[in-house]
Amino acid sequence: MRKFTGILVSIVAALFLALAISCAPADTGKSSYAEDRAQIEDLQARYLFALDFFDLDTYVSTFTEDGVLDIIAYQAKGRDEIRKKLEEARSVFDPASENAKGPYPPTGRHNITNIVLKIDGDRATGRSYWFHYGNSNPERKPVFDGYGHYEDEMVKVNGQWLFSKRVIYNEGVAEWIAPAKNPCW
Amino acid sequence: MRKFTGILVSIVAALFLALAISCAPADTGKSSYAEDRAQIEDLQARYLFALDFFDLDTYVSTFTEDGVLDIIAYQAKGRDEIRKKLEEARSVFDPASENAKGPYPPTGRHNITNIVLKIDGDRATGRSYWFHYGNSNPERKPVFDGYGHYEDEMVKVNGQWLFSKRVIYNEGVAEWIAPAKNPCW
Amino acid sequence: MRKFTGILVSIVAALFLALAISCAPADTGKSSYAEDRAQIEDLQARYLFALDFFDLDTYVSTFTEDGVLDIIAYQAKGRDEIRKKLEEARSVFDPASENAKGPYPPTGRHNITNIVLKIDGDRATGRSYWFHYGNSNPERKPVFDGYGHYEDEMVKVNGQWLFSKRVIYNEGVAEWIAPAKNPCW
Repeated sequence: MRKFTGILVSIVAALFLALAISCAPADTGKSSYAEDRAQIEDLQARYLFALDFFDLDTYVSTFTEDGVLDIIAYQAKGRDEIRKKLEEARSVFDPASENAKGPYPPTGRHNITNIVLKIDGDRATGRSYWFHYGNSNPERKPVFDGYGHYEDEMVKVNGQWLFSKRVIYNEGVAEWIAPAKNPCW
Repeated sequence: MRKFTGILVSIVAALFLALAISCAPADTGKSSYAEDRAQIEDLQARYLFALDFFDLDTYVSTFTEDGVLDIIAYQAKGRDEIRKKLEEARSVFDPASENAKGPYPPTGRHNITNIVLKIDGDRATGRSYWFHYGNSNPERKPVFDGYGHYEDEMVKVNGQWLFSKRVIYNEGVAEWIAPAKNPCW
Repeated sequence: MRKFTGILVSIVAALFLALAISCAPADTGKSSYAEDRAQIEDLQARYLFALDFFDLDTYVSTFTEDGVLDIIAYQAKGRDEIRKKLEEARSVFDPASENAKGPYPPTGRHNITNIVLKIDGDRATGRSYWFHYGNSNPERKPVFDGYGHYEDEMVKVNGQWLFSKRVIYNEGVAEWIAPAKNPCW
C-alpha cells in the first residue's frame, strides 16, 4: 500500500515538473520581445517629453546611474554630469528660457521614429531617427529644423528599462553626422 | 487506506491550486502591457487616417458613446456632437473640400509620435505629440505647418480600446498652447 | 486498493488535461497581436534604415523572394528586380551619391508613422504614413520635402515577417496620389 502511494506521489511529482516546465514560457511572457519593446518605446517617448519640457529630474532618471550621453561633441557619464550638461545647454533645449519676441512662449519638440530594437535578455540595442521642429521665431511659425539618429544601449534594472548609453548623431553639424554605413541590421 | 487516498487527493488539489495560480499570468497574457499598448497604438493610427481622409463614421467610432473631444476652444461630448463639430470644420480638416487651385486635390496629414502610455486594467492614460503637414498651395509643395500634443484617456469596452477623452493642445494658437510643465511622468 | 489507485490516476490525468488546455494560450503567446505587431514595426523601421543608408542587401531582404514593390509608376517583382530598380534610382535615394555642393555629404531620411495593422495568422495587412526630409542643398539646411502613405501586405516566413507587397502612394506627383477614400478601417 505505501509502495503504491509512493509511486503515485512520484508520478504526480514528475507530471507537475513537466507541466511547470511547459508552462514556463507563459510565466516569462512578461519579458517577451513585445513586452520589452513596449516598455522601451515608452521609455523613448518619456525621455523626449522630459527633454522638451525641460524636466531634468525625469530626463536623468531615464539613464542608469552610470549611464552615458554621447552627443559626439562630448560624453557625459552619470546622472549628475548629464544634468550639468543639460543645464549648460538650457538655451538650446528650453525655448521658453529664451527672450524670444512673440505673442507667447516658443516651444521646440524632438520626435522619434523608425525604432529598430534587438533585445537579448536584460540588454537591448536600439537604432532610431530623431527630428526636431519648433516655433522660436517672432511669428511662432512652425519650422522643421533638425534631424539625425540615435544609437542606444539599454539595460533592464529592477524590471525597468533604462539607457546605459545614448549616442546622438546630428546631420546639422559636420562633425556630428552619421557614418555612411547603415548602422542597422 | 482511505485516509492515505484522502491525504493524497488533498496534496494533489493543493498542488493544482498552486500551479493554477502560477500559470494565471500566462492566461491573462492577452491583457499584458504590450497587448494593450499594441491595440492602443492601432487605435491612435486609425483615428488619424479617419481624420485626414475625412471618414467621419470611423472617426467618431474611435470614441466611446459619451466620449469627449476637447480642443481647448470647445468641448464636444458624444459621437453625434463630435461629428457635428468635425462637419463644421470640414474646410480645415478636409483639404479636398477646398477650392484650392493646383494640378490635383491637396491633402493634409496629422502624425502621432512619442506615445507614452500608463495602463491600469481597462483604463489608460496617454500623452503623445502630433504634427501636421500638407500641400494646400498652388504648387502642391509639401509644407510642415503645425504641431502640439495629445492628452488622452482611454477605456477598454467589450475588448476594444476607445477614447473616452482626447484633449488637443496646439502650439499655433496662443489660447491653445501647452502649459510649461511636463504633462508626462 | 488497485481500484482506488486507478480512479485516482484517472482523476489526476483528467485534471492535468484540463490544466494543460487552460495553459495553452500562454504557450502560443509568441504569436499574439502584440508579438506580431512588434516584429512588424521592427521590419518597417529596418526597411527605412536600409533605404536611406542605401544598404540594398538588407533592403531587398525585407521582401519575400517574390515580393512586389509597387510605386504606382512601376511594379518590381522579386528581390533581383527590386534591387535593379533601386540601383537605377540611386541618385534619388542615395543623396551621398550626388555631387551636391556643400560642407559635407547630404542625407535624406524616410520616416514612418501612424501604423495600422490587421493580423490574421501568418498574414498581415498594413496602412501607414511616410514622410521625407533631407539637406540636399548647399547650406545643408533641413527641409521637409515629401509625403504619402504605404499599403502593405506581409507574410510570416519561417517565423520572420516580410513584405509580400508594398504599394507606395506619393502626394508629390499627380499620378501617384492616394484615392480620396480612407484606405483604413
